[in-house]
Amino acid sequence: MAEAERRHTISVLVENEPGVLARVIGLFAGRGYNIESLTVAEVDPGRHLSRINIVTTGTEFVIEQIKALLAKLVPVHTVQDLTVLGPHVERELALVKVTGDRERLIEALRIADFMHARLVDSMPGCLVFEATGTPDELDALIELVRPVEVSRAGVVAIGRGATILEAKAAA
Amino acid sequence: MAEAERRHTISVLVENEPGVLARVIGLFAGRGYNIESLTVAEVDPGRHLSRINIVTTGTEFVIEQIKALLAKLVPVHTVQDLTVLGPHVERELALVKVTGDRERLIEALRIADFMHARLVDSMPGCLVFEATGTPDELDALIELVRPVEVSRAGVVAIGRGATILEAKAAA
Repeated sequence: MAEAERRHTISVLVENEPGVLARVIGLFAGRGYNIESLTVAEVDPGRHLSRINIVTTGTEFVIEQIKALLAKLVPVHTVQDLTVLGPHVERELALVKVTGDRERLIEALRIADFMHARLVDSMPGCLVFEATGTPDELDALIELVRPVEVSRAGVVAIGRGATILEAKAAA
Repeated sequence: MAEAERRHTISVLVENEPGVLARVIGLFAGRGYNIESLTVAEVDPGRHLSRINIVTTGTEFVIEQIKALLAKLVPVHTVQDLTVLGPHVERELALVKVTGDRERLIEALRIADFMHARLVDSMPGCLVFEATGTPDELDALIELVRPVEVSRAGVVAIGRGATILEAKAAA
């Protein structure tokens, strides 16, 4: 019986040094593991720590292997599988651009208002909205607004409650 | 005289196939070019197109080289240097977690309200806010709120007006 595949959101805290992102991603690519979305940004500039959020789909066996390999990389401090860990918050950011005549733009403004998207730029004939939500919510907004261009961030995640993704103490 | 380094925001539209992200990032890592932030997400599921937003710093010579190399990768459709192209919108998403006693949480709620951050999760002793803005605006929020944990997306960008990052027609 084939093991069920499941979508996992994994957060990794890494030393922000050249090539670390390439090594993390190479670990997926080298084994044919897929990355659905990825975000990376420095979260503690004083200590040069970056947090990588990865959404991937795989069997429990594959996910366990990914986590073990990630934890073995030298510049990796901590690996957290938020899907297994329990309750967490997942949000994504999208910028959507709508162009067209007056009617089209007014319709877009109405939909954006209903769906809590915010106008961040406007020019004659062109509006840009910023929306945050779960990936599904953003998909729904995009389906309704029918933008000419979309730029999305991928999933940003954080655990609920007092469990914190912390750096290991320096050796 | 040393050439001035400058921060560039580059958007790349790619075929969403295994290994494409590894190749794009490998191109930076292999030459020691730095990636300040990176986001990737599918923007046109029907056509399997993903958009990668990369923020990098370099001299004009290095940036031109990066763009030329990116454009040569097979699954890459279009490369857009938004910094050179002119007016564009840059936004980032952050989730910030604050823990503490009643006083501490009420203070965080006040700061969040002033800075237009939105409460997305609350538990006894623990709040999670979602904030969007320029990277600088998020840095300022984080400095004021002093969260115990931060998860950020990296920069999402889109050009102003009618210039659109489009896929090349199929050969």
